[in-house]
Amino acid sequence: MQQKIAVLGPGSWGTALAKSLVENGHDVRLWSHKEEPVQEINNKHTNEAYLKGIELPKELKATSNMAEAVADVDAVLFVVPTKAIRSVAKQLVAVLETKPVIIHASKGFEQETHKRISEILEEEIPSEKRQNVVVLSGPSHAEELAVRDITTVTAACEDLEQAKYVQDLFMNDYFRIYTNTDVLGVETGAALKNIIALGSGAIHGLGFGDNAKAALMTRGLAEISRLGVAMGADPLTFIGLSGVGDLIVTCTSVHSRNWRAGDLLGKGHNLDEILENMGMIVEGVSTTKAAYELAQDLNVDMPITETIYNVIYKGQDVKEAVRQLMLREGRSE
Amino acid sequence: MQQKIAVLGPGSWGTALAKSLVENGHDVRLWSHKEEPVQEINNKHTNEAYLKGIELPKELKATSNMAEAVADVDAVLFVVPTKAIRSVAKQLVAVLETKPVIIHASKGFEQETHKRISEILEEEIPSEKRQNVVVLSGPSHAEELAVRDITTVTAACEDLEQAKYVQDLFMNDYFRIYTNTDVLGVETGAALKNIIALGSGAIHGLGFGDNAKAALMTRGLAEISRLGVAMGADPLTFIGLSGVGDLIVTCTSVHSRNWRAGDLLGKGHNLDEILENMGMIVEGVSTTKAAYELAQDLNVDMPITETIYNVIYKGQDVKEAVRQLMLREGRSE
Repeated sequence: MQQKIAVLGPGSWGTALAKSLVENGHDVRLWSHKEEPVQEINNKHTNEAYLKGIELPKELKATSNMAEAVADVDAVLFVVPTKAIRSVAKQLVAVLETKPVIIHASKGFEQETHKRISEILEEEIPSEKRQNVVVLSGPSHAEELAVRDITTVTAACEDLEQAKYVQDLFMNDYFRIYTNTDVLGVETGAALKNIIALGSGAIHGLGFGDNAKAALMTRGLAEISRLGVAMGADPLTFIGLSGVGDLIVTCTSVHSRNWRAGDLLGKGHNLDEILENMGMIVEGVSTTKAAYELAQDLNVDMPITETIYNVIYKGQDVKEAVRQLMLREGRSE
Repeated sequence: MQQKIAVLGPGSWGTALAKSLVENGHDVRLWSHKEEPVQEINNKHTNEAYLKGIELPKELKATSNMAEAVADVDAVLFVVPTKAIRSVAKQLVAVLETKPVIIHASKGFEQETHKRISEILEEEIPSEKRQNVVVLSGPSHAEELAVRDITTVTAACEDLEQAKYVQDLFMNDYFRIYTNTDVLGVETGAALKNIIALGSGAIHGLGFGDNAKAALMTRGLAEISRLGVAMGADPLTFIGLSGVGDLIVTCTSVHSRNWRAGDLLGKGHNLDEILENMGMIVEGVSTTKAAYELAQDLNVDMPITETIYNVIYKGQDVKEAVRQLMLREGRSE
């Protein structure tokens, strides 16, 4: 049955998800806080800054008016950068008149509080104004979903029925959704994999090969899982689509921003310069700080995260830091 | 302390491992059943058919005489194709006069019996003629180890002391060895990942993108783990270097034969033609049959293995088979 869905955030992933929902026959309103993408999407049916060369369906309507976006909605999908989640949620609450399912597809931790995105959303949106929060996450480059390449992700919610509702919203021939109930595991995996992507890019930028990269990803998966489990996640979640699946795609694909930023770090570029030139949010940078602090609090060993932290926030030489990391004493797995 | 080590099998990986052992100061004899590589290694210090462009250490001696190779040895390393393991072990036993540590770095199951390599070695080499069998496995392209790119693998043995002995043999600045006691898990992961590499190559050959490939690898890791656990392995082994690490490197790197064979399958080439043109053993082909039969015996669901089996052994159209695989009904992870 056709659902009314507001998609908040017209970046690459938000636009690609909105396009898929329209193709499934839903009534979709894509909200942006800026006016330019709204005009481009409504008039030219493109979003060139984020999805180059993709023709968007004419039925996809954009708006910068939150009340218009969420009028009568059945579901609201957040796809904004982590640092904007809280303020966008406040804007939503101010005008919301239904009790929609809340979905999010963002990846990170809140910098100051280390809170997960679903925790922020649950705090900001009173329970009488929403159903449960569902997180959508998995190996998914927007550029590929937008051209209907087969893409497979997880929809996680403590309430399995609502995860199934989200599964039904998105599922079609090219977009396959698996349900899961471990929201914490899915969110931590999604956030933390960006740190390993920075490391994997740095390894490449420094000139190491595929053996070293695979070792880094494997040890990275282990340390992500350690932190996640210490936070309360199911260890099995980390070998699922939102864990190792997303890790693989982010660490091995040319589309990944975090990987590209890491590659430039490895080649000796300065972080500020990298971020300025990329012009998009690189979530892994702030996630590294949050994860480093969480690992300290929970007494979890995270050598890769610590290495990236030392390079980004302490100015350690990247070559020396990575060399030390790779030469840590061999021992049992 | 310098050890006397026989390396049986002058393929890419055997030669690269022998080179590393020489660089660690050991007395290494590389045995080949053919005379040509012996001459080339001894006279030109190269093995161009398998390690193009690599200069081998002058101290590395090759021989086609098994008795000469294993005279007085402390350790014997098997790096021959799976189907040759039993006959090479028989040749070794006929001339062996010491009681060496037996190491192997081969990946597969015996076609008729479905036995693992360590099981074959334990059968063929009487216990009074050997120490325990140690398996060496992990994400490791020979071409990268040969140029001293950092490479990290697992040495597994039920007797941890012997795994540590093997760790000490190989460990240096660019080759990092982790110990493990789950021989069964390491061997099954090493063998089964070649099936997923065939599938990953086929996905690429058919024109799918990184999202689909990451999904296939993730679901592949899950089905590998299911079979391994049904056989008695520790599930954690599959998220280690010999599991997900080796899976990643084999499924994403241009060096992998199994991936290349799958890519050609996906592009519509015939298997016999592919194998003939490659001129090297593609272990995944026979492993697919063994794993398919093991899964039937143990009642384990292995949809990717079944798909590859149907394409290779039943002549199913690869495009249709993969399409059906990717469109299996979404459900919980």
